[in-house]
Amino acid sequence: MSTEDLQKYLDFAKNLALEAGAIAKRAAEDTALHVVSKDDNSPVTAADEAINRLVIERVQQTFSNIGVLGEEESLNAEPTSGLLWVCDPIDGTIPFTLGIPISTFCLALVEDGEPVVGVVYHFGKDLLYAAAKGLGAFCNGEKLLPPQNDPLLILPVETWHAAPNDIGMHVAKLRAAKYQMPNFTSSAYESTLIMRGKLKGLLYAGNKPWDIAAQYVALNELGFEVTDIYGRSQRYDGLIKGAFIGRRGLYAELFGA
Amino acid sequence: MSTEDLQKYLDFAKNLALEAGAIAKRAAEDTALHVVSKDDNSPVTAADEAINRLVIERVQQTFSNIGVLGEEESLNAEPTSGLLWVCDPIDGTIPFTLGIPISTFCLALVEDGEPVVGVVYHFGKDLLYAAAKGLGAFCNGEKLLPPQNDPLLILPVETWHAAPNDIGMHVAKLRAAKYQMPNFTSSAYESTLIMRGKLKGLLYAGNKPWDIAAQYVALNELGFEVTDIYGRSQRYDGLIKGAFIGRRGLYAELFGA
Repeated sequence: MSTEDLQKYLDFAKNLALEAGAIAKRAAEDTALHVVSKDDNSPVTAADEAINRLVIERVQQTFSNIGVLGEEESLNAEPTSGLLWVCDPIDGTIPFTLGIPISTFCLALVEDGEPVVGVVYHFGKDLLYAAAKGLGAFCNGEKLLPPQNDPLLILPVETWHAAPNDIGMHVAKLRAAKYQMPNFTSSAYESTLIMRGKLKGLLYAGNKPWDIAAQYVALNELGFEVTDIYGRSQRYDGLIKGAFIGRRGLYAELFGA
Repeated sequence: MSTEDLQKYLDFAKNLALEAGAIAKRAAEDTALHVVSKDDNSPVTAADEAINRLVIERVQQTFSNIGVLGEEESLNAEPTSGLLWVCDPIDGTIPFTLGIPISTFCLALVEDGEPVVGVVYHFGKDLLYAAAKGLGAFCNGEKLLPPQNDPLLILPVETWHAAPNDIGMHVAKLRAAKYQMPNFTSSAYESTLIMRGKLKGLLYAGNKPWDIAAQYVALNELGFEVTDIYGRSQRYDGLIKGAFIGRRGLYAELFGA
Protein backbone atom coordinates (compact mmCIF):
# COMPACT_ATOMS: atom_id res chain seq x y z
CA MET A 1 0.00 0.00 0.00
CA SER A 2 1.27 3.47 -0.83
CA THR A 3 2.36 5.87 1.89
CA GLU A 4 -0.41 8.19 0.75
CA ASP A 5 -3.04 5.49 1.22
CA LEU A 6 -1.63 4.47 4.60
CA GLN A 7 -1.79 8.10 5.71
CA LYS A 8 -5.37 8.44 4.46
CA TYR A 9 -6.53 5.37 6.41
CA LEU A 10 -4.57 6.45 9.48
CA ASP A 11 -6.20 9.89 9.48
CA PHE A 12 -9.63 8.28 9.16
CA ALA A 13 -8.89 5.93 12.07
CA LYS A 14 -7.56 8.72 14.31
CA ASN A 15 -10.60 10.92 13.74
CA LEU A 16 -12.93 8.00 14.35
CA ALA A 17 -11.06 7.15 17.56
CA LEU A 18 -11.67 10.64 18.96
CA GLU A 19 -15.35 10.43 18.03
CA ALA A 20 -15.65 6.99 19.63
CA GLY A 21 -13.73 8.09 22.72
CA ALA A 22 -16.17 10.94 23.28
CA ILE A 23 -19.02 8.41 23.49
CA ALA A 24 -17.02 6.22 25.87
CA LYS A 25 -16.09 9.17 28.10
CA ARG A 26 -19.72 10.24 28.42
CA ALA A 27 -20.71 6.68 29.34
CA ALA A 28 -17.86 6.42 31.87
CA GLU A 29 -19.36 9.38 33.73
CA ASP A 30 -22.80 7.78 33.81
CA THR A 31 -23.22 6.49 37.34
CA ALA A 32 -26.28 4.51 36.22
CA LEU A 33 -24.31 2.79 33.44
CA HIS A 34 -26.32 -0.26 32.41
CA VAL A 35 -24.21 -3.39 32.13
CA VAL A 36 -25.43 -6.73 30.82
CA SER A 37 -23.70 -10.05 30.58
CA LYS A 38 -22.89 -11.75 27.28
CA ASP A 39 -23.06 -15.52 26.77
CA ASP A 40 -19.50 -15.95 28.06
CA ASN A 41 -20.32 -13.77 31.13
CA SER A 42 -18.21 -10.90 29.84
CA PRO A 43 -19.99 -7.59 30.30
CA VAL A 44 -21.23 -5.30 27.55
CA THR A 45 -22.66 -1.79 27.77
CA ALA A 46 -24.70 0.40 25.47
CA ALA A 47 -21.48 2.33 24.80
CA ASP A 48 -19.76 -0.74 23.30
CA GLU A 49 -22.71 -1.18 20.97
CA ALA A 50 -23.05 2.50 20.05
CA ILE A 51 -19.35 2.80 19.21
CA ASN A 52 -19.35 -0.38 17.13
CA ARG A 53 -22.36 0.98 15.21
CA LEU A 54 -20.61 4.32 14.67
CA VAL A 55 -17.59 2.57 13.18
CA ILE A 56 -19.77 0.64 10.75
CA GLU A 57 -21.61 3.81 9.70
CA ARG A 58 -18.42 5.79 9.16
CA VAL A 59 -16.82 2.99 7.17
CA GLN A 60 -19.94 2.60 5.03
CA GLN A 61 -19.97 6.35 4.34
CA THR A 62 -16.26 6.55 3.51
CA PHE A 63 -15.01 3.22 2.15
CA SER A 64 -17.87 1.28 0.65
CA ASN A 65 -15.62 -1.62 -0.43
CA ILE A 66 -14.10 -2.34 3.01
CA GLY A 67 -15.75 -4.62 5.60
CA VAL A 68 -15.77 -4.33 9.38
CA LEU A 69 -15.04 -7.13 11.84
CA GLY A 70 -16.21 -5.82 15.22
CA GLU A 71 -16.54 -7.28 18.69
CA GLU A 72 -20.25 -6.50 18.92
CA GLU A 73 -21.26 -6.29 15.25
CA SER A 74 -19.71 -6.78 11.82
CA LEU A 75 -20.30 -5.48 8.30
CA ASN A 76 -19.76 -7.88 5.42
CA ALA A 77 -18.75 -5.64 2.58
CA GLU A 78 -17.98 -7.01 -0.84
CA PRO A 79 -14.48 -8.39 -0.43
CA THR A 80 -13.13 -6.57 -3.44
CA SER A 81 -10.35 -4.70 -1.69
CA GLY A 82 -8.47 -7.29 0.39
CA LEU A 83 -8.93 -4.80 3.24
CA LEU A 84 -10.84 -5.19 6.50
CA TRP A 85 -11.34 -2.86 9.47
CA VAL A 86 -11.02 -4.80 12.75
CA CYS A 87 -12.51 -3.04 15.77
CA ASP A 88 -12.89 -3.43 19.51
CA PRO A 89 -15.21 -0.58 20.47
CA ILE A 90 -14.16 -0.78 24.15
CA ASP A 91 -11.24 -3.05 24.94
CA GLY A 92 -11.39 -3.67 28.68
CA THR A 93 -15.12 -3.57 29.32
CA ILE A 94 -14.63 -5.06 32.81
CA PRO A 95 -12.42 -2.18 34.04
CA PHE A 96 -14.72 0.22 32.15
CA THR A 97 -17.72 -0.94 34.17
CA LEU A 98 -15.68 -0.81 37.40
CA GLY A 99 -14.48 2.74 36.85
CA ILE A 100 -10.82 1.81 36.30
CA PRO A 101 -9.57 4.16 33.57
CA ILE A 102 -7.56 1.68 31.48
CA SER A 103 -9.98 0.88 28.66
CA THR A 104 -9.35 1.79 25.03
CA PHE A 105 -10.93 2.12 21.62
CA CYS A 106 -9.13 -0.11 19.10
CA LEU A 107 -9.26 0.00 15.31
CA ALA A 108 -6.94 -1.67 12.79
CA LEU A 109 -6.90 -1.81 9.03
CA VAL A 110 -5.91 -5.32 8.01
CA GLU A 111 -4.54 -5.95 4.48
CA ASP A 112 -4.53 -9.58 3.39
CA GLY A 113 -4.44 -10.66 7.04
CA GLU A 114 -1.75 -8.21 8.20
CA PRO A 115 -2.55 -5.10 10.28
CA VAL A 116 -1.04 -2.10 8.45
CA VAL A 117 -2.77 0.77 10.27
CA GLY A 118 -3.70 0.76 13.96
CA VAL A 119 -5.04 3.20 16.52
CA VAL A 120 -5.49 2.61 20.25
CA TYR A 121 -7.24 5.45 22.05
CA HIS A 122 -6.77 5.38 25.83
CA PHE A 123 -9.65 7.80 26.28
CA GLY A 124 -9.42 7.87 30.09
CA LYS A 125 -6.13 9.72 29.76
CA ASP A 126 -6.59 11.24 26.29
CA LEU A 127 -3.69 9.27 24.85
CA LEU A 128 -4.06 8.41 21.16
CA TYR A 129 -1.58 5.82 19.92
CA ALA A 130 -1.41 5.62 16.13
CA ALA A 131 0.82 3.75 13.74
CA ALA A 132 1.06 2.73 10.10
CA LYS A 133 3.37 0.12 8.62
CA GLY A 134 6.74 1.67 7.85
CA LEU A 135 5.69 5.12 9.05
CA GLY A 136 6.51 4.76 12.77
CA ALA A 137 4.43 4.81 15.94
CA PHE A 138 3.13 7.95 17.62
CA CYS A 139 1.29 9.00 20.76
CA ASN A 140 -0.64 12.26 20.49
CA GLY A 141 1.52 13.10 17.49
CA GLU A 142 4.82 12.51 19.26
CA LYS A 143 7.05 9.82 17.79
CA LEU A 144 7.57 6.82 20.08
CA LEU A 145 11.03 5.29 20.34
CA PRO A 146 11.86 1.74 21.40
CA PRO A 147 12.21 1.69 25.21
CA GLN A 148 15.83 1.48 26.37
CA ASN A 149 15.17 0.16 29.89
CA ASP A 150 14.72 -3.42 31.01
CA PRO A 151 11.31 -3.74 32.74
CA LEU A 152 10.71 -5.73 35.92
CA LEU A 153 9.47 -9.30 35.39
CA ILE A 154 5.82 -8.32 35.08
CA LEU A 155 3.89 -9.84 32.19
CA PRO A 156 0.09 -9.78 32.14
CA VAL A 157 -1.72 -12.96 31.23
CA GLU A 158 -5.10 -12.37 29.62
CA THR A 159 -7.15 -15.46 30.20
CA TRP A 160 -10.65 -16.31 31.40
CA HIS A 161 -12.92 -19.26 32.02
CA ALA A 162 -13.68 -19.89 28.36
CA ALA A 163 -10.28 -18.95 26.88
CA PRO A 164 -10.01 -21.11 23.76
CA ASN A 165 -6.20 -21.41 23.62
CA ASP A 166 -4.31 -23.60 26.09
CA ILE A 167 -1.54 -21.55 27.70
CA GLY A 168 -0.83 -23.99 30.54
CA MET A 169 2.76 -24.58 29.39
CA HIS A 170 3.41 -20.87 29.03
CA VAL A 171 2.06 -20.01 32.47
CA ALA A 172 4.09 -22.83 34.07
CA LYS A 173 7.28 -21.51 32.46
CA LEU A 174 6.53 -17.91 33.41
CA ARG A 175 5.84 -19.04 36.98
CA ALA A 176 9.12 -20.98 37.08
CA ALA A 177 10.90 -17.87 35.79
CA LYS A 178 9.26 -15.93 38.68
CA TYR A 179 7.20 -13.58 36.56
CA GLN A 180 4.40 -11.57 38.12
CA MET A 181 1.27 -12.21 36.02
CA PRO A 182 -1.52 -9.71 36.64
CA ASN A 183 -4.65 -9.74 34.48
CA PHE A 184 -5.96 -6.22 33.99
CA THR A 185 -8.30 -7.54 31.22
CA SER A 186 -7.32 -4.71 28.91
CA SER A 187 -4.81 -6.04 26.39
CA ALA A 188 -4.48 -2.94 24.22
CA TYR A 189 -3.78 -0.75 27.26
CA GLU A 190 -1.24 -3.28 28.52
CA SER A 191 0.37 -3.18 25.07
CA THR A 192 0.85 0.58 25.38
CA LEU A 193 2.73 -0.08 28.65
CA ILE A 194 4.96 -2.53 26.77
CA MET A 195 5.68 0.23 24.23
CA ARG A 196 6.68 2.49 27.14
CA GLY A 197 9.01 -0.07 28.74
CA LYS A 198 6.77 -0.64 31.79
CA LEU A 199 5.86 -4.28 31.16
CA LYS A 200 7.91 -7.18 29.79
CA GLY A 201 5.21 -8.40 27.47
CA LEU A 202 1.76 -9.93 27.24
CA LEU A 203 0.35 -13.44 26.94
CA TYR A 204 -3.18 -13.63 25.55
CA ALA A 205 -5.24 -16.82 25.54
CA GLY A 206 -8.20 -15.54 23.54
CA ASN A 207 -9.00 -15.90 19.84
CA LYS A 208 -10.37 -12.43 19.03
CA PRO A 209 -8.34 -10.58 16.39
CA TRP A 210 -9.65 -7.19 17.64
CA ASP A 211 -7.90 -7.69 20.99
CA ILE A 212 -4.47 -7.58 19.28
CA ALA A 213 -4.68 -6.15 15.74
CA ALA A 214 -4.74 -2.41 16.57
CA GLN A 215 -1.62 -2.37 18.78
CA TYR A 216 0.16 -4.84 16.45
CA VAL A 217 1.26 -2.06 14.10
CA ALA A 218 2.84 0.24 16.71
CA LEU A 219 4.49 -2.71 18.49
CA ASN A 220 6.01 -3.85 15.19
CA GLU A 221 7.22 -0.36 14.38
CA LEU A 222 8.95 -0.27 17.79
CA GLY A 223 10.69 -3.60 17.18
CA PHE A 224 8.57 -5.87 19.37
CA GLU A 225 7.50 -9.32 18.23
CA VAL A 226 3.79 -10.10 18.08
CA THR A 227 3.08 -13.77 17.43
CA ASP A 228 0.52 -16.44 18.20
CA ILE A 229 1.07 -18.52 21.36
CA TYR A 230 3.33 -20.86 19.34
CA GLY A 231 5.68 -18.04 18.41
CA ARG A 232 4.46 -17.88 14.80
CA SER A 233 3.07 -15.03 12.74
CA GLN A 234 -0.66 -15.23 12.01
CA ARG A 235 -3.50 -13.53 10.15
CA TYR A 236 -5.77 -10.98 11.87
CA ASP A 237 -8.81 -11.15 9.59
CA GLY A 238 -10.37 -14.06 11.50
CA LEU A 239 -10.02 -15.93 14.78
CA ILE A 240 -6.45 -16.04 16.12
CA LYS A 241 -4.43 -18.60 18.08
CA GLY A 242 -3.85 -16.38 21.09
CA ALA A 243 -0.96 -13.95 21.15
CA PHE A 244 2.43 -13.32 22.71
CA ILE A 245 4.06 -9.90 22.73
CA GLY A 246 7.61 -9.18 23.87
CA ARG A 247 10.93 -7.78 22.76
CA ARG A 248 12.58 -9.65 19.90
CA GLY A 249 13.81 -13.05 21.12
CA LEU A 250 11.83 -13.15 24.37
CA TYR A 251 9.40 -15.82 23.16
CA ALA A 252 12.25 -18.19 22.27
CA GLU A 253 14.05 -17.49 25.58
CA LEU A 254 10.96 -18.20 27.64
CA PHE A 255 9.27 -21.00 25.78
CA GLY A 256 11.87 -22.47 23.41
CA ALA A 257 12.22 -21.69 19.72
CA MET B 1 -13.09 -2.75 73.47
CA SER B 2 -15.20 0.24 74.40
CA THR B 3 -16.88 2.39 71.76
CA GLU B 4 -14.79 5.29 72.99
CA ASP B 5 -11.55 3.37 72.44
CA LEU B 6 -12.66 2.12 69.02
CA GLN B 7 -13.44 5.69 68.02
CA LYS B 8 -10.05 6.89 69.29
CA TYR B 9 -8.16 4.28 67.27
CA LEU B 10 -10.33 4.91 64.22
CA ASP B 11 -9.64 8.65 64.33
CA PHE B 12 -5.91 7.96 64.62
CA ALA B 13 -6.04 5.58 61.62
CA LYS B 14 -8.04 8.01 59.48
CA ASN B 15 -5.65 10.89 60.12
CA LEU B 16 -2.66 8.68 59.43
CA ALA B 17 -4.28 7.47 56.19
CA LEU B 18 -4.57 11.02 54.89
CA GLU B 19 -0.97 11.74 55.82
CA ALA B 20 0.20 8.52 54.11
CA GLY B 21 -1.95 9.19 51.06
CA ALA B 22 -0.32 12.58 50.59
CA ILE B 23 3.08 10.85 50.30
CA ALA B 24 1.68 8.31 47.87
CA LYS B 25 0.03 10.99 45.73
CA ARG B 26 3.27 12.95 45.43
CA ALA B 27 5.11 9.78 44.42
CA ALA B 28 2.41 8.89 41.88
CA GLU B 29 3.09 12.18 40.10
CA ASP B 30 6.83 11.51 39.98
CA THR B 31 7.56 10.47 36.42
CA ALA B 32 11.03 9.30 37.48
CA LEU B 33 9.58 7.06 40.21
CA HIS B 34 12.29 4.58 41.15
CA VAL B 35 11.04 1.00 41.35
CA VAL B 36 13.07 -1.93 42.57
CA SER B 37 12.24 -5.60 42.70
CA LYS B 38 11.90 -7.53 45.95
CA ASP B 39 13.02 -11.16 46.35
CA ASP B 40 9.69 -12.43 45.05
CA ASN B 41 9.91 -10.05 42.03
CA SER B 42 7.17 -7.85 43.40
CA PRO B 43 8.03 -4.18 43.04
CA VAL B 44 8.66 -1.72 45.86
CA THR B 45 9.15 2.05 45.75
CA ALA B 46 10.60 4.62 48.12
CA ALA B 47 7.00 5.64 48.84
CA ASP B 48 6.12 2.19 50.22
CA GLU B 49 9.09 2.45 52.57
CA ALA B 50 8.48 6.07 53.59
CA ILE B 51 4.84 5.39 54.43
CA ASN B 52 5.65 2.26 56.42
CA ARG B 53 8.23 4.29 58.39
CA LEU B 54 5.69 7.06 59.01
CA VAL B 55 3.22 4.55 60.44
CA ILE B 56 5.82 3.18 62.82
CA GLU B 57 6.81 6.67 63.95
CA ARG B 58 3.23 7.78 64.54
CA VAL B 59 2.39 4.60 66.45
CA GLN B 60 5.52 4.96 68.60
CA GLN B 61 4.60 8.56 69.39
CA THR B 62 0.97 7.80 70.21
CA PHE B 63 0.60 4.21 71.45
CA SER B 64 3.87 3.02 72.92
CA ASN B 65 2.43 -0.37 73.89
CA ILE B 66 1.14 -1.37 70.43
CA GLY B 67 3.30 -3.07 67.79
CA VAL B 68 3.22 -2.68 64.03
CA LEU B 69 3.22 -5.51 61.49
CA GLY B 70 4.01 -3.85 58.15
CA GLU B 71 4.68 -5.08 54.63
CA GLU B 72 8.07 -3.38 54.44
CA GLU B 73 9.01 -3.03 58.12
CA SER B 74 7.65 -3.99 61.53
CA LEU B 75 7.90 -2.71 65.09
CA ASN B 76 8.02 -5.26 67.85
CA ALA B 77 6.44 -3.51 70.76
CA GLU B 78 6.06 -5.21 74.10
CA PRO B 79 2.99 -7.36 73.68
CA THR B 80 1.28 -5.95 76.75
CA SER B 81 -1.86 -4.74 75.06
CA GLY B 82 -3.05 -7.67 72.89
CA LEU B 83 -3.24 -5.05 70.14
CA LEU B 84 -1.31 -4.84 66.88
CA TRP B 85 -1.43 -2.39 63.98
CA VAL B 86 -1.28 -4.24 60.64
CA CYS B 87 -0.28 -2.07 57.70
CA ASP B 88 0.16 -2.26 53.93
CA PRO B 89 1.69 1.12 53.05
CA ILE B 90 0.70 0.76 49.38
CA ASP B 91 -1.55 -2.15 48.52
CA GLY B 92 -1.28 -2.60 44.75
CA THR B 93 2.30 -1.53 44.13
CA ILE B 94 2.19 -2.99 40.60
CA PRO B 95 -0.67 -0.74 39.44
CA PHE B 96 0.94 2.11 41.42
CA THR B 97 4.14 1.81 39.36
CA LEU B 98 2.13 1.49 36.13
CA GLY B 99 0.07 4.61 36.77
CA ILE B 100 -3.24 2.77 37.30
CA PRO B 101 -5.05 4.65 40.10
CA ILE B 102 -6.34 1.68 42.10
CA SER B 103 -3.79 1.46 44.90
CA THR B 104 -4.62 2.07 48.55
CA PHE B 105 -3.13 2.69 51.98
CA CYS B 106 -4.31 0.01 54.43
CA LEU B 107 -4.20 0.01 58.21
CA ALA B 108 -6.00 -2.24 60.68
CA LEU B 109 -5.99 -2.51 64.43
CA VAL B 110 -6.05 -6.18 65.35
CA GLU B 111 -7.21 -7.23 68.83
CA ASP B 112 -6.30 -10.77 69.83
CA GLY B 113 -6.12 -11.71 66.15
CA GLU B 114 -9.35 -10.00 65.07
CA PRO B 115 -9.38 -6.73 63.07
CA VAL B 116 -11.59 -4.28 64.99
CA VAL B 117 -10.65 -1.02 63.27
CA GLY B 118 -9.75 -0.69 59.57
CA VAL B 119 -9.09 2.08 57.09
CA VAL B 120 -8.54 1.74 53.34
CA TYR B 121 -7.57 4.98 51.63
CA HIS B 122 -8.01 4.90 47.84
CA PHE B 123 -5.84 7.98 47.49
CA GLY B 124 -6.09 8.11 43.68
CA LYS B 125 -9.75 9.04 44.05
CA ASP B 126 -9.67 10.54 47.56
CA LEU B 127 -11.98 7.86 48.94
CA LEU B 128 -11.38 7.03 52.60
CA TYR B 129 -13.12 3.84 53.75
CA ALA B 130 -13.22 3.50 57.52
CA ALA B 131 -14.89 1.06 59.86
CA ALA B 132 -14.85 -0.08 63.46
CA LYS B 133 -16.41 -3.23 64.86
CA GLY B 134 -20.05 -2.63 65.67
CA LEU B 135 -19.92 1.03 64.59
CA GLY B 136 -20.63 0.57 60.86
CA ALA B 137 -18.65 1.23 57.68
CA PHE B 138 -18.21 4.66 56.12
CA CYS B 139 -16.71 6.21 53.00
CA ASN B 140 -15.67 9.84 53.37
CA GLY B 141 -17.94 10.02 56.39
CA GLU B 142 -21.00 8.67 54.60
CA LYS B 143 -22.46 5.46 55.97
CA LEU B 144 -22.22 2.50 53.60
CA LEU B 145 -25.18 0.16 53.28
CA PRO B 146 -25.09 -3.45 52.12
CA PRO B 147 -25.43 -3.49 48.30
CA GLN B 148 -28.88 -4.57 47.11
CA ASN B 149 -27.93 -5.57 43.57
CA ASP B 150 -26.59 -8.91 42.34
CA PRO B 151 -23.22 -8.30 40.63
CA LEU B 152 -22.14 -9.98 37.39
CA LEU B 153 -20.04 -13.13 37.82
CA ILE B 154 -16.75 -11.26 38.17
CA LEU B 155 -14.50 -12.34 41.03
CA PRO B 156 -10.83 -11.29 41.08
CA VAL B 157 -8.28 -13.95 41.91
CA GLU B 158 -5.14 -12.58 43.55
CA THR B 159 -2.37 -15.03 42.88
CA TRP B 160 1.22 -14.92 41.69
CA HIS B 161 4.15 -17.18 40.97
CA ALA B 162 5.06 -17.70 44.62
CA ALA B 163 1.56 -17.70 46.10
CA PRO B 164 1.82 -19.96 49.16
CA ASN B 165 -1.76 -21.20 49.29
CA ASP B 166 -3.06 -23.72 46.76
CA ILE B 167 -6.25 -22.41 45.19
CA GLY B 168 -6.34 -24.86 42.28
CA MET B 169 -9.65 -26.38 43.40
CA HIS B 170 -11.22 -22.95 43.87
CA VAL B 171 -10.15 -21.70 40.45
CA ALA B 172 -11.41 -24.88 38.77
CA LYS B 173 -14.82 -24.47 40.41
CA LEU B 174 -15.01 -20.77 39.58
CA ARG B 175 -14.08 -21.58 35.96
CA ALA B 176 -16.76 -24.28 35.81
CA ALA B 177 -19.27 -21.76 37.17
CA LYS B 178 -18.17 -19.39 34.33
CA TYR B 179 -16.76 -16.66 36.53
CA GLN B 180 -14.56 -13.96 35.04
CA MET B 181 -11.37 -13.85 37.14
CA PRO B 182 -9.32 -10.70 36.60
CA ASN B 183 -6.28 -10.00 38.76
CA PHE B 184 -5.90 -6.29 39.36
CA THR B 185 -3.29 -7.05 42.10
CA SER B 186 -4.95 -4.63 44.49
CA SER B 187 -7.02 -6.61 46.95
CA ALA B 188 -8.12 -3.76 49.21
CA TYR B 189 -9.36 -1.74 46.24
CA GLU B 190 -11.18 -4.80 44.90
CA SER B 191 -12.75 -5.20 48.35
CA THR B 192 -14.16 -1.67 48.14
CA LEU B 193 -15.82 -2.70 44.85
CA ILE B 194 -17.35 -5.68 46.66
CA MET B 195 -18.74 -3.26 49.27
CA ARG B 196 -20.29 -1.26 46.42
CA GLY B 197 -21.90 -4.28 44.73
CA LYS B 198 -19.61 -4.16 41.68
CA LEU B 199 -17.81 -7.48 42.21
CA LYS B 200 -19.05 -10.84 43.49
CA GLY B 201 -16.11 -11.41 45.78
CA LEU B 202 -12.38 -12.01 45.98
CA LEU B 203 -10.14 -15.07 46.18
CA TYR B 204 -6.67 -14.40 47.58
CA ALA B 205 -3.85 -16.97 47.49
CA GLY B 206 -1.32 -15.04 49.55
CA ASN B 207 -0.44 -15.27 53.23
CA LYS B 208 0.00 -11.59 54.13
CA PRO B 209 -2.40 -10.39 56.83
CA TRP B 210 -2.00 -6.75 55.68
CA ASP B 211 -3.60 -7.59 52.32
CA ILE B 212 -6.92 -8.41 54.02
CA ALA B 213 -7.07 -7.06 57.60
CA ALA B 214 -7.96 -3.41 56.87
CA GLN B 215 -10.99 -4.09 54.68
CA TYR B 216 -12.09 -6.98 56.91
CA VAL B 217 -13.84 -4.65 59.33
CA ALA B 218 -15.97 -2.76 56.78
CA LEU B 219 -16.82 -5.98 54.93
CA ASN B 220 -17.99 -7.55 58.17
CA GLU B 221 -20.03 -4.50 59.08
CA LEU B 222 -21.75 -4.77 55.68
CA GLY B 223 -22.61 -8.44 56.20
CA PHE B 224 -19.98 -10.03 53.94
CA GLU B 225 -18.07 -13.13 54.99
CA VAL B 226 -14.28 -12.94 55.12
CA THR B 227 -12.66 -16.34 55.67
CA ASP B 228 -9.49 -18.25 54.83
CA ILE B 229 -9.52 -20.32 51.61
CA TYR B 230 -11.11 -23.21 53.56
CA GLY B 231 -14.09 -21.10 54.57
CA ARG B 232 -12.95 -20.75 58.18
CA SER B 233 -12.30 -17.70 60.32
CA GLN B 234 -8.64 -16.96 61.04
CA ARG B 235 -6.31 -14.65 62.96
CA TYR B 236 -4.76 -11.56 61.33
CA ASP B 237 -1.79 -11.02 63.61
CA GLY B 238 0.47 -13.38 61.62
CA LEU B 239 0.58 -15.20 58.28
CA ILE B 240 -2.84 -16.16 56.94
CA LYS B 241 -4.17 -19.09 54.90
CA GLY B 242 -5.30 -17.01 51.94
CA ALA B 243 -8.72 -15.40 51.95
CA PHE B 244 -12.15 -15.58 50.40
CA ILE B 245 -14.61 -12.69 50.48
CA GLY B 246 -18.22 -12.86 49.35
CA ARG B 247 -21.79 -12.40 50.47
CA ARG B 248 -22.90 -14.70 53.26
CA GLY B 249 -23.23 -18.26 51.96
CA LEU B 250 -21.30 -17.76 48.72
CA TYR B 251 -18.27 -19.77 49.87
CA ALA B 252 -20.43 -22.79 50.66
CA GLU B 253 -22.36 -22.48 47.38
CA LEU B 254 -19.21 -22.33 45.29
CA PHE B 255 -16.86 -24.67 47.10
CA GLY B 256 -19.00 -26.83 49.40
CA ALA B 257 -19.56 -26.26 53.08
